[in-house]
Amino acid sequence: MNGAESLVRTLLASEIDTCFANPGTSEMHFVAALDKVPGMRCVLGMAEIVVSGCADGYARMARKPAATLLHCGPGLGNAIANIHNARRAWSPMVNIVGDHATYHRGFDAPLTADTEGLARAVSHWVRVSANAQSVGADGAAAVQAARSGPGQIATLILPADTAWGEGGVVGARLTPEKRGEVAPETLRNVAQVLRSGQPTMIVLAGDALLERGLAAAWRVATATGAKLRTPMQVSRMARGRGRPPVDRVPYAIDNALKAFEGIQHVILVGAKAPMAFFAYPGRPSLLAPAASQTHVLARPEQDGVHALEWLADELGAAKSLQLVENAAKPEIVKGKFEPEAFARTFAAILPENCIVQEDAVTSGRALFAPTFQAAPNDWLQNTGGAIGHGFGCATGAAIASPDRKVICLQADGAGMYSLQALWTQAREKLDVVNVVFANRVYKILHGELISVGAKPGPASNEIFDLARPALDWQQLAAGMGMESTRVDTLEGFADAFQAACKRRGPFLIEFVIA
Amino acid sequence: MNGAESLVRTLLASEIDTCFANPGTSEMHFVAALDKVPGMRCVLGMAEIVVSGCADGYARMARKPAATLLHCGPGLGNAIANIHNARRAWSPMVNIVGDHATYHRGFDAPLTADTEGLARAVSHWVRVSANAQSVGADGAAAVQAARSGPGQIATLILPADTAWGEGGVVGARLTPEKRGEVAPETLRNVAQVLRSGQPTMIVLAGDALLERGLAAAWRVATATGAKLRTPMQVSRMARGRGRPPVDRVPYAIDNALKAFEGIQHVILVGAKAPMAFFAYPGRPSLLAPAASQTHVLARPEQDGVHALEWLADELGAAKSLQLVENAAKPEIVKGKFEPEAFARTFAAILPENCIVQEDAVTSGRALFAPTFQAAPNDWLQNTGGAIGHGFGCATGAAIASPDRKVICLQADGAGMYSLQALWTQAREKLDVVNVVFANRVYKILHGELISVGAKPGPASNEIFDLARPALDWQQLAAGMGMESTRVDTLEGFADAFQAACKRRGPFLIEFVIA
Repeated sequence: MNGAESLVRTLLASEIDTCFANPGTSEMHFVAALDKVPGMRCVLGMAEIVVSGCADGYARMARKPAATLLHCGPGLGNAIANIHNARRAWSPMVNIVGDHATYHRGFDAPLTADTEGLARAVSHWVRVSANAQSVGADGAAAVQAARSGPGQIATLILPADTAWGEGGVVGARLTPEKRGEVAPETLRNVAQVLRSGQPTMIVLAGDALLERGLAAAWRVATATGAKLRTPMQVSRMARGRGRPPVDRVPYAIDNALKAFEGIQHVILVGAKAPMAFFAYPGRPSLLAPAASQTHVLARPEQDGVHALEWLADELGAAKSLQLVENAAKPEIVKGKFEPEAFARTFAAILPENCIVQEDAVTSGRALFAPTFQAAPNDWLQNTGGAIGHGFGCATGAAIASPDRKVICLQADGAGMYSLQALWTQAREKLDVVNVVFANRVYKILHGELISVGAKPGPASNEIFDLARPALDWQQLAAGMGMESTRVDTLEGFADAFQAACKRRGPFLIEFVIA
Repeated sequence: MNGAESLVRTLLASEIDTCFANPGTSEMHFVAALDKVPGMRCVLGMAEIVVSGCADGYARMARKPAATLLHCGPGLGNAIANIHNARRAWSPMVNIVGDHATYHRGFDAPLTADTEGLARAVSHWVRVSANAQSVGADGAAAVQAARSGPGQIATLILPADTAWGEGGVVGARLTPEKRGEVAPETLRNVAQVLRSGQPTMIVLAGDALLERGLAAAWRVATATGAKLRTPMQVSRMARGRGRPPVDRVPYAIDNALKAFEGIQHVILVGAKAPMAFFAYPGRPSLLAPAASQTHVLARPEQDGVHALEWLADELGAAKSLQLVENAAKPEIVKGKFEPEAFARTFAAILPENCIVQEDAVTSGRALFAPTFQAAPNDWLQNTGGAIGHGFGCATGAAIASPDRKVICLQADGAGMYSLQALWTQAREKLDVVNVVFANRVYKILHGELISVGAKPGPASNEIFDLARPALDWQQLAAGMGMESTRVDTLEGFADAFQAACKRRGPFLIEFVIA
């Protein structure tokens, strides 16, 4: 058995059975091993940014890592943006990156690159396999690392001779590090803060945004009057009717600061101290008032859900959830696109138990609150801010959840960074409805230019403009084998969306809002 | 004047007047500065791999660097593949990468990443600006570094507060390091080798492949019987009628080894010791026979052209070029695509003084020799092996050479990595004829799988297959505002290509060869 085969067998033994791949020559023995070892589903992406995006979406829904298969150096480079996003979502991921044979590196062949340096810049765990005999154990360690704590990026670099060399040994499954419990003293301190009655904001991230965590947080909030917020972007959140309507920290800096006005205590559950997405001249980096106190209930690697449940009980919160109906009623609105009207329309027609991948950027700014009363769903966002997330992440989520409808809300500018994912959706016949918001402009950058205190002019407007020529998303979709339609009103969207949700398989709706 | 404006003024003072851009928030002050300072042409790419590809193509033709404008961390990550390729072509490039404000980094906002680590992995020169006052001088140093030696990758990281801070000072133009002369002793030693009459191969790269270098090398070869070769891929080569017909080292390992059979001396002019592109089990890494001797006439940072001219004179070579007509006559062949027949057809219809960007991968393997008698042209290839080079490089070459027709020969699989470049071509109305070879398979990987000693099977064939669904390049082109046609015979190609060359502006020909 060669090293590559031992790795495929090791991954399967560690319950990794899905591999998103864009291989090159140095990965050919891994590819060949797929023919020898049944059980690994291999999904091709036609660009590496798609591959890593898929692995992120898969991990968020499957709650376990997928493997990626990437080519040495520049191949890994192309995948970095969505590895970064996955890292910010604490998505577990096992990257298998081929490299030149150890003895070949010294000759500085064209593709020789600092693969290890690139890997270290974006991974929690990196190892270069030394020989065919160690590849199996290295693979098991990579999976262990990826599954430890809240989820990590593990990158295993496989020089070609370690893949083709004989003497491979299948690695035994290793137990990942469990999440640590929160210390009793911390629990008691936070309980005391909550009992104080002083204005308090609890910021929830990670698992605390799944059903159990949200329920416990809501009980705490109901019992104490504390406010709840998610970070600006959520990795995965249980949303819709019957789920606590927790709003997020706004992206726009002034709105974000306003959300924290008067707050005296900030309690973090798997979240970082809320900060501005970017620095803006004359605005603080941290959103909480300077005089407020920040308390860490649970770090990302700790069991924040259990801590919240303990707190709810300790504070004598009612066991049953007391949810009040959100004011914004879902209903189909007519007329031109407008973010709030779209959100109400979308909430009215969202299918039951779907997955929403939201990468709508400016078009999606108003989506959160008006969709509290939509059908129950899981909501995914781009937690890392690297553009090019939506299509790939939706694709991976669909691979992980074949029985659920996936809705991908995608801004046009951002969508262009990874449009190749549409081909993978078509190839795998995934049940994804892609909605592209065609405003034909980098609208977010217009706003950002002003936010940083600069003035738009002809040159900057030219750089933000995507209308000359206008992208035709129907043609782009057709070019990759996907059916589509185009709408330019909310009622048109509602009709097209409902029709698309009734059928199975990938579809694209271009919503022209320019 | 803020730091960003001082940088734009510095770049202009250093004769950098073209910027390929895909900015984000941290680059907004640079963008705003473009409105204050006239003279910088800013070209938008809808993905960073396009931006860096454009900068590479531009540098090869303009013989000076363009600037790129990239977003922090992941934005730079997305550009790495073509920065790598540019590095392997010794293309000068000045990357301006924004980053979080210095005081904001500690809060670990979503986009916080190891921008400097990524930059170091792919650049010859990296600097992080410390404050607004130093940005101008840093910019001048970056241009100096990029223009030093044979051309380098210089990456300047600009924390947002150094861009928006006041007190910017325009940096004075700095003189790049000149290329060093080859030592007289080296020249004499190589002359002696050439006089020995023993089988000798001269491998030419970089400037030695432009008109002057080739002429001198040809004189040397004619006078001594030495053979000439280029590396497997050339960064830029003067080709066609009237130019010395120097063939390249074949890519396929066994053919490459054969090309060096019996060679006793290898003389390197700006080239590395020829090596296999990848390592293959049972094959050596170095191509020259183990018993042969390798002599470095000129390192890449030395003046190899001058050294060749000295040698030609020293060896008493005739001043006039004695070119023999190559056997393969250009002529339009009829029928289905076949690499050699395509090459002969292409050679017959290539327009005078055009630029050929060849990223045709397997479809282009036979192109080199049969095009020796084509119309004079400059020929560019992917010297780094990172996929996703062609469309972007052709786009940048067209920006640098507005009066020349650019022909981009692009394999379909490789083309999908940077198809967004078609939009930039359409937007800028560039005079590029794109020919996409639609074999609908990662054909090179089929060959590589066998070359590394593995066996194709259902799983591996599935991963290489791009036919399910087939890409429709006409629709993809139309989606980005580009006209196109489809052909499936050589005569059909000849007609379409000649028609496309007669008009101006971007066009795409999908040559279905599946």
